[in-house]
Amino acid sequence: MNHVYRLVISCPDQVGIVAKVAEYIAGQGGSIVEANHHTDSGNGWFFMRHEILASSLSASLEEFEKGFQALAEEFEMEWYISDSQKPKKIALFASKESHCLADLLHRWHENELPGEVVCVIANHDDLRSMVEWYKVPFHHIPVTPDTKPQAFAQAEAVASQYDTEVIVLARYMQILPPKMCSDYAGQVINIHHSFLPSFVGAKPYHQASERGVKLIGATCHYVTEDLDEGPIIEQDVIRVNHSKTIDDLKRLGRDVEKTVLARGLRYHLEDRVLIHGNKTVVFDS
Amino acid sequence: MNHVYRLVISCPDQVGIVAKVAEYIAGQGGSIVEANHHTDSGNGWFFMRHEILASSLSASLEEFEKGFQALAEEFEMEWYISDSQKPKKIALFASKESHCLADLLHRWHENELPGEVVCVIANHDDLRSMVEWYKVPFHHIPVTPDTKPQAFAQAEAVASQYDTEVIVLARYMQILPPKMCSDYAGQVINIHHSFLPSFVGAKPYHQASERGVKLIGATCHYVTEDLDEGPIIEQDVIRVNHSKTIDDLKRLGRDVEKTVLARGLRYHLEDRVLIHGNKTVVFDS
Amino acid sequence: MNHVYRLVISCPDQVGIVAKVAEYIAGQGGSIVEANHHTDSGNGWFFMRHEILASSLSASLEEFEKGFQALAEEFEMEWYISDSQKPKKIALFASKESHCLADLLHRWHENELPGEVVCVIANHDDLRSMVEWYKVPFHHIPVTPDTKPQAFAQAEAVASQYDTEVIVLARYMQILPPKMCSDYAGQVINIHHSFLPSFVGAKPYHQASERGVKLIGATCHYVTEDLDEGPIIEQDVIRVNHSKTIDDLKRLGRDVEKTVLARGLRYHLEDRVLIHGNKTVVFDS
Amino acid sequence: MNHVYRLVISCPDQVGIVAKVAEYIAGQGGSIVEANHHTDSGNGWFFMRHEILASSLSASLEEFEKGFQALAEEFEMEWYISDSQKPKKIALFASKESHCLADLLHRWHENELPGEVVCVIANHDDLRSMVEWYKVPFHHIPVTPDTKPQAFAQAEAVASQYDTEVIVLARYMQILPPKMCSDYAGQVINIHHSFLPSFVGAKPYHQASERGVKLIGATCHYVTEDLDEGPIIEQDVIRVNHSKTIDDLKRLGRDVEKTVLARGLRYHLEDRVLIHGNKTVVFDS
Repeated sequence: MNHVYRLVISCPDQVGIVAKVAEYIAGQGGSIVEANHHTDSGNGWFFMRHEILASSLSASLEEFEKGFQALAEEFEMEWYISDSQKPKKIALFASKESHCLADLLHRWHENELPGEVVCVIANHDDLRSMVEWYKVPFHHIPVTPDTKPQAFAQAEAVASQYDTEVIVLARYMQILPPKMCSDYAGQVINIHHSFLPSFVGAKPYHQASERGVKLIGATCHYVTEDLDEGPIIEQDVIRVNHSKTIDDLKRLGRDVEKTVLARGLRYHLEDRVLIHGNKTVVFDS
Repeated sequence: MNHVYRLVISCPDQVGIVAKVAEYIAGQGGSIVEANHHTDSGNGWFFMRHEILASSLSASLEEFEKGFQALAEEFEMEWYISDSQKPKKIALFASKESHCLADLLHRWHENELPGEVVCVIANHDDLRSMVEWYKVPFHHIPVTPDTKPQAFAQAEAVASQYDTEVIVLARYMQILPPKMCSDYAGQVINIHHSFLPSFVGAKPYHQASERGVKLIGATCHYVTEDLDEGPIIEQDVIRVNHSKTIDDLKRLGRDVEKTVLARGLRYHLEDRVLIHGNKTVVFDS
Repeated sequence: MNHVYRLVISCPDQVGIVAKVAEYIAGQGGSIVEANHHTDSGNGWFFMRHEILASSLSASLEEFEKGFQALAEEFEMEWYISDSQKPKKIALFASKESHCLADLLHRWHENELPGEVVCVIANHDDLRSMVEWYKVPFHHIPVTPDTKPQAFAQAEAVASQYDTEVIVLARYMQILPPKMCSDYAGQVINIHHSFLPSFVGAKPYHQASERGVKLIGATCHYVTEDLDEGPIIEQDVIRVNHSKTIDDLKRLGRDVEKTVLARGLRYHLEDRVLIHGNKTVVFDS
Repeated sequence: MNHVYRLVISCPDQVGIVAKVAEYIAGQGGSIVEANHHTDSGNGWFFMRHEILASSLSASLEEFEKGFQALAEEFEMEWYISDSQKPKKIALFASKESHCLADLLHRWHENELPGEVVCVIANHDDLRSMVEWYKVPFHHIPVTPDTKPQAFAQAEAVASQYDTEVIVLARYMQILPPKMCSDYAGQVINIHHSFLPSFVGAKPYHQASERGVKLIGATCHYVTEDLDEGPIIEQDVIRVNHSKTIDDLKRLGRDVEKTVLARGLRYHLEDRVLIHGNKTVVFDS
């Protein structure tokens, strides 16, 4: 994989942004590997992502950033540059179910995940041995109705001790407290076991079975204080029929869940997801 | 296509039903082309469908039916036999949008639809010429808030004059009155332009766009008094992303709508759909 | 739909192209509605497509083009600009099967197809009435082994009389002569009833049935002298199983064929397809 | 999961088979949980599979089988009964790539796979630690051009020492010798990393990239002496485009491969696959 810098921008739309940004990049010798733009004509907002070959820049990343600052101010940009050689640090939150956790750990172990798994935090101890085989620190932090505030304070402390940049709720089954939602706004990714907005709330496979739907799905979304209402990153479905029991739905659903979570997380790790209000722009080249 | 009789049964489950039915069919010389069973272990209900080669029966269909009656009573069956050479008579209800209507008319014209389109009833006159090209009678029955009861009485009269057995709401955009729902219970098929139960109610594509979903869909279902809540026959989805406008969603949605409606209607016309409560068993070999 | 100009470019890759193009567009006041780039790192070739809001340009399209010429020469570009208000003229070639033809005519009639159907040329007369209902001229040009050269000369003459820019083989079932392939290079679109490169040649559904595949598909591709080997624009598949007869496969296949052809043609009409060697870059925003 | 017996039958088709079989099952008190039939009208062959609730039988399985023998002979059946509580013993063959192996081991570990993994045989030692974490015996049997016959003799000896009933080539990357193909006819399952019959032979992702296809796929099939030509059990595809590198195709392909292999293997383990010539009947309720 190429060593690239990812320049991610959003700002009010106006004529000339693309030219100015491209001109600046070219002026630094930057070779553009991938570029995406999007204008939301509804709200006049502009989104842009560039992958620039690191080796092509004539100056350092710091100088590049410093030089870009003037442009950014002129166009009132929200922006950042990330370095593909500094993969984001990921804390995986789990409970008892292993399918999403095992899938992500395996992808990371095989160098397929463009991020670094720094720890697993779980409210049950069941998955310790599996996690430790991957030589990932495992923290068992039980959550009970009484200890919930302390438990989450502890979880957040552990996460920050690893400089966590992304929290993935890999079937964690606990509702995060508002403080954590806001401390890690846009950085907590959940997998919901339904095709949102269908079947919000508990036991979506039971709900799906009762309604007699012909497809079941999963949704990867950012966590916000409004449960099941955060910006959607990725979704997918699988066909079912009358012959499937709840257990079949759960089994089939697990495959969709882990695939959708892995895809959504990948987009996030590669800085392909730009959040705006309650919607996302996902630049999947 | 073979000339077949379709024996469709549902009843409380018990040991021996399959044997008794198969024995009876074999006793009449019946060659089984296709057979499907399903037991709903939740409610102990049994569902069964056979396709029997017409030419293989030693006696007439009437005698076959008469003989079967005793068995049916023994097992408390709800049952019927249909004849593939007596295709169901279909009334298509339309408004201004043509995609579903044109698709069904074309399939029927090409002998692909296992039913007979007997008339089109529309609350606008726009599609008359297209329908008449297919030599199908076109009835323009306007519906206004004031004339609604009379308009539907008239529509039902027209439908019954053609011995209509299936009503298809091909983007009809009107809510049927309770009387019509009950007169044609299990015989009115609607296409809803969302992946139900997501986005019930008006303007589902606007709702989908606002929620930022990554797939949009359509649902073919039986019409009941509970709007958007009838038993689901078929569903499908198509992938979308942030770059799609409402008009794009509508355009992409039209393709899903017409495909899902054609599939669902086909299942119904071939007696593949068994309704039980608010769910369906769809035997798609 | 917005009135836009589409600027389509391919050239050897080098640093600065994007900046120079974007700078030129901005210099003319051009507001970019959609932009896509791709670099084929295998062969060092660069591809680019812009949609520019027509009303935003300070000068005429002619002046814009003239001014761009210098840039194009500097970077050795192959390029063109198209105008969304001058939809491409399409000749539909058909035989006896109507599903693709009916689908495209209906989309065009509903203003969904971003092109203008100027005529239908068919080697059988069966579909005349359907075509004429759409008020599209229908030309019956029979093709026999003996008259093939004359027939195609005549077909090409008819096509050119309508200033045809795109030829669509909507299940035309005839092999075009080399001359026609080269006269309309990159402008003849075919729908092949298999998931190429599986089942090239005749009777693909029979081949698929014999091989026992679990999915069947269709392929929309540009026609070249190498039968079934032209650049692929779009493909899709549908699930099948052992219970499906050849007739079922054909019926299911027709739905895939018409959908894939409509999508592929749409990409072409919107100048989203850039051919390079035997591959395509398809910019589907 | 219910304890069931699976009665699997294929024989020449004739009137009365279903009745006789159902009558026999009912006579033994057998409660049918699931039933599927299929007649291949092309060759007049009949296929049938029943799941019978074990607890419902009035006699032992041995007596059931003995009694059935007469019926089987009358109809010239190929048949067997399997017991869901005696899961098939599986030997997994692997090389260096871990995605399919890890996926199957994890499913087995989570009690999702209706079979018993008895050993892993690999021609490289790389995956030993992962396998041993699952407490599955790992046998490293290197294969070189010179030692191929001995290596496979040894592999077969190891497999038989575990009473292996199914061999799964989980990206094993070696061609089995004819003896092994015939010793385990209908019991060796391979995952091929293309949508067969496209791209047989080596490096299918390179071939797919070169041909510019828009979907890539995977095929789960029984291994026969004709490489890449065995009966197909399951297939699936995933969408790709021009922007995907060979590495992307491989990554995306891995997800399809492991899903398709897991599904195909599941069908086999549940006795849902009936082989006839080079095709399969897959009864997926």
